Amino acid sequence: MLPLYNERLPQNAQHDRIDIILVSPRNPLNIGAAARAMANFAFSRLTVVAPYQPHWREAKSAVGAEDLLQHARVTASLAEAVADCTLVLGTGSLERRKPEQRVVALPSLCRFVGQELADHGRIALVFGPEKRGLTRDDLALCHAIVEIPTDPRQPSMNLAQAVAVCLYELSSRLSAAPCPGSTRPAHATSARLEMLAGLIEETMSAASYSPAERNAANRHDLRLLLRRLDLCDRDAHRILGLFRRILWKIRHQKNMG
Amino acid sequence: MLPLYNERLPQNAQHDRIDIILVSPRNPLNIGAAARAMANFAFSRLTVVAPYQPHWREAKSAVGAEDLLQHARVTASLAEAVADCTLVLGTGSLERRKPEQRVVALPSLCRFVGQELADHGRIALVFGPEKRGLTRDDLALCHAIVEIPTDPRQPSMNLAQAVAVCLYELSSRLSAAPCPGSTRPAHATSARLEMLAGLIEETMSAASYSPAERNAANRHDLRLLLRRLDLCDRDAHRILGLFRRILWKIRHQKNMG
Repeated sequence: MLPLYNERLPQNAQHDRIDIILVSPRNPLNIGAAARAMANFAFSRLTVVAPYQPHWREAKSAVGAEDLLQHARVTASLAEAVADCTLVLGTGSLERRKPEQRVVALPSLCRFVGQELADHGRIALVFGPEKRGLTRDDLALCHAIVEIPTDPRQPSMNLAQAVAVCLYELSSRLSAAPCPGSTRPAHATSARLEMLAGLIEETMSAASYSPAERNAANRHDLRLLLRRLDLCDRDAHRILGLFRRILWKIRHQKNMG
Repeated sequence: MLPLYNERLPQNAQHDRIDIILVSPRNPLNIGAAARAMANFAFSRLTVVAPYQPHWREAKSAVGAEDLLQHARVTASLAEAVADCTLVLGTGSLERRKPEQRVVALPSLCRFVGQELADHGRIALVFGPEKRGLTRDDLALCHAIVEIPTDPRQPSMNLAQAVAVCLYELSSRLSAAPCPGSTRPAHATSARLEMLAGLIEETMSAASYSPAERNAANRHDLRLLLRRLDLCDRDAHRILGLFRRILWKIRHQKNMG
């Protein structure tokens, strides 16, 4: 079986717990340049979500393409890409929308990330497509948004340059950031939060909490709320148990009724 | 008369005293992306040295090209481009050569630059061509080399990404760096140092200091030495006067002899 990631690539203990995720990148040159920046700053874990296949093949077959492109993971959805991550960070300029979650300025990112690494977490840094950036649905899977401080007159960065700037910041200041051994329990993974969201949704539906046309909005709010809670894995597990019991009870009552 | 720089562009007091200089860039996409990064981080003073004309025209005429490209200054030589600067910083990876001048790691750049700005200096940040980077002769015009800390396995960055990373660092941390009002006299400009180097060379030649085949090496060493001395403008002026007198004396004695 082929390894998901290239085992021969540099194995920096901190960088290895940071996944770089490109959502539906279009431009093969951008994909290549993003991979080059990853190699420059010694990151090796690349995931590409739902790439446009002809451009993805072109990027991989380019002369001088980075090794890590060949070993990149490809997933169909962002949820799948971040499933085993405990801290998911979206990137983007915020000029067009009011953020629904915490915003971290890039120069302060290492404190945030350093603590999560000390807590034995796995981190995803997510970049949206060139034209539109991450969607509201993509961002609902993120615990926080990383904002690159740019000039309001030209806030939108080229994808590969945004990747380079973020990885430079992480690479040059992560090792310097204090990373004390932590006694905090591990955060819940994205997959666990999604499972919990699904079960709560099911419960809301079973309890006729709100009309069906509210389902999409409820799902969105629920995803954001679960990420704001800062749940440890054990608590997420407990809450899952509670909702399973509640759901069972509701359905059992129905059958009784 | 057209202004050298676009007066309508953002006028950040600190950024306006920093010139971004691209030496003989080849790839129009790189030129465009470097200009985009400048706009993202609110830098507006671009100088291009000896560009390859067809590619330079292509970069300027590209759809969505930044305004600052249209108003970029074009010079024939790097010496001309940095003539009015008091601190010239070359960039590049150092894997292939032993640096002949001070090296500043990019994460420490703002302390260095902040002091020079407080001393009322003008700064040049110089990027070499894509393939070979800055030459030894280019670097002899630099007071220091800025090193982007990259992985030794893939140290060489894409030009536009290197520009983005350097400008992000300056932009995000310059305002935070302490910039006390300084009582130090202003540094000598590059033009003044070049004038001094020329006069000392002439003196060396008049004094038959060394055989002619050593001239090029002497010129190189002299340039480096003058930039190490950290000369204020007044002292440079004094030394110029001294060497003028010495040169006159040597020639006068000759005529007497």
